[in-house]
Amino acid sequence: MIRIIQLGLGPLGQKVASYALQREGVKIVGAVDLDTEKVGKDVGQLCAGKSIGVEITKTLDEALERAKADVAVLTTVSSLEKVEPQIKELAEAQLPMVSTCEELSFPWITQPMIAKRIDKVCKSNGVACVGTGVNPGFLMDYLPSVLSSVCQNVQAVHVSRVQDASVRRIPFQQKIGVGLTEEGFKEKANNGTLRHVGLTESIHLIAHALNWELDRIEETLEPVRALEKITSGYIDIDKDNPRGVLQIGRGFIDGDEKITLHFRAAVGEEESYDEIEIEGTPSFSSRISGGINGDIATSAITVNAVAAILKAEPGLRTMLDIPVPACFSTI
Amino acid sequence: MIRIIQLGLGPLGQKVASYALQREGVKIVGAVDLDTEKVGKDVGQLCAGKSIGVEITKTLDEALERAKADVAVLTTVSSLEKVEPQIKELAEAQLPMVSTCEELSFPWITQPMIAKRIDKVCKSNGVACVGTGVNPGFLMDYLPSVLSSVCQNVQAVHVSRVQDASVRRIPFQQKIGVGLTEEGFKEKANNGTLRHVGLTESIHLIAHALNWELDRIEETLEPVRALEKITSGYIDIDKDNPRGVLQIGRGFIDGDEKITLHFRAAVGEEESYDEIEIEGTPSFSSRISGGINGDIATSAITVNAVAAILKAEPGLRTMLDIPVPACFSTI
Repeated sequence: MIRIIQLGLGPLGQKVASYALQREGVKIVGAVDLDTEKVGKDVGQLCAGKSIGVEITKTLDEALERAKADVAVLTTVSSLEKVEPQIKELAEAQLPMVSTCEELSFPWITQPMIAKRIDKVCKSNGVACVGTGVNPGFLMDYLPSVLSSVCQNVQAVHVSRVQDASVRRIPFQQKIGVGLTEEGFKEKANNGTLRHVGLTESIHLIAHALNWELDRIEETLEPVRALEKITSGYIDIDKDNPRGVLQIGRGFIDGDEKITLHFRAAVGEEESYDEIEIEGTPSFSSRISGGINGDIATSAITVNAVAAILKAEPGLRTMLDIPVPACFSTI
Repeated sequence: MIRIIQLGLGPLGQKVASYALQREGVKIVGAVDLDTEKVGKDVGQLCAGKSIGVEITKTLDEALERAKADVAVLTTVSSLEKVEPQIKELAEAQLPMVSTCEELSFPWITQPMIAKRIDKVCKSNGVACVGTGVNPGFLMDYLPSVLSSVCQNVQAVHVSRVQDASVRRIPFQQKIGVGLTEEGFKEKANNGTLRHVGLTESIHLIAHALNWELDRIEETLEPVRALEKITSGYIDIDKDNPRGVLQIGRGFIDGDEKITLHFRAAVGEEESYDEIEIEGTPSFSSRISGGINGDIATSAITVNAVAAILKAEPGLRTMLDIPVPACFSTI
């Protein structure tokens, strides 16, 4: 039985906690959130509508006074800078940890100073730490790296994640710019709220796996436009207005595009799918028709990684060097 | 630069060596084979038609007298019993090792005594050891385990590897029973020469990854029959005669079939493909159309695993607990 303390109970944190609560083999023994509305409530009640006798506390210390834990799940922020003090606190409490912080998935090149500090504090406290999720963490980086294992050489890696947003809830549709005008889209694109965080980290992880030194990485974001007036199921979209977003990450060596990550989510896509194409010896492509549901996958892989991180070596790890976080749920 | 000693220079061993010779980052510094026809020859000449100044020796000791090595590649036999003394010798020479021995990929349940002895001798000498290949080692066990990482629960795993043998060379066609009569097929099936080794090991590896305890495993082998008279490109096949082989491995819990591995290779298959279907939350299937070429993949993953095994913890490891053996070839 793995005892978990969870930090961060926003929408994703709640979903991860609800998954952990459904599982055999793991147990939530503590939960921490800054939100005074949540502090004092039962974490089971908040996340799964059923009390488990574990009260949400405002600080990690309070949680640790009440129960011993084996591992922490950190579902707070996307920013490495903001997550660093939380990691430090967990490491000093000797807790190995799994986090959904996107920037943590491969921070060695984007933010090397913070990465080194995190690695150091984890090593000196004998705990391992990893950033995971569906993306970054699996579909567009870990899985392509795994697939490259059967290659004698790799010339290029192209990944496409295409999602039809027609079937998704309204917050998701809003997140990808559905219903905005051209100007509204530009404004949100410029202030960063439309951006999926993690393409750059995924590119760095693939390059690291393949032993490639990239010259540069490029990220673009643009609207996917409606060819005629359509409805999202919730919102009407005028012709030429955004029906979703296309974000592309590219990694170059000597001017050649070696890594391409397409992330496209829009209302009215003909098909959802995840596809990985490897050019090399051999060349092949692997496709998941229908695609992988992001909410389910991120929550599941986070819980699965809890067992893997306990077997990993101390320090800031990546998905490439922890044991396979296979689904360890008892049937 | 990783210095390799290779043991076993049969057809697969030669292909693995030729792949290592093409790579940057690795170097063959020794080669061992019992065949007196090969001893004394240059391993580069034998495997890639180009001398590299490394003579094939009859024993490991002779190879080690001539050069220091970091790791061994063991491409000798499929049988765990026969490979055990070779592993012992390598471990006592402090060489971590990667082997294509099928039974080594997950011997903990089929041959636990030998597995424990191998684990012990590796640990006491501080070296790691792993069995890999395309299958067992990747397509039908490691990759399904990796895919389960995004699942909250898994109810069943079905894997199909289907290969059209029309495009393959005559030795491969003969290996899968093409051109045999019904009686000839039965005879070869009974003496084990048609059998692909490793389905049971693959089932055990998946079950281990998913934390499942199987009640029993079943393996069947039967001919795929020609519906009419056809030709393989080399051999005529009469109506109703074998045009290939279908081998099925099944793993059961409480009488339910939870793991199914279909391995089908026959002349006149409409399509080659590798497909993994996971039933669970979420359910999805992942497909590689055209399939992965087995000879290329086994040789490539063996060379790729050489870098991974150097970072693995000492002992008998599985693909689940070594770092991802991504293709580390420099472009």
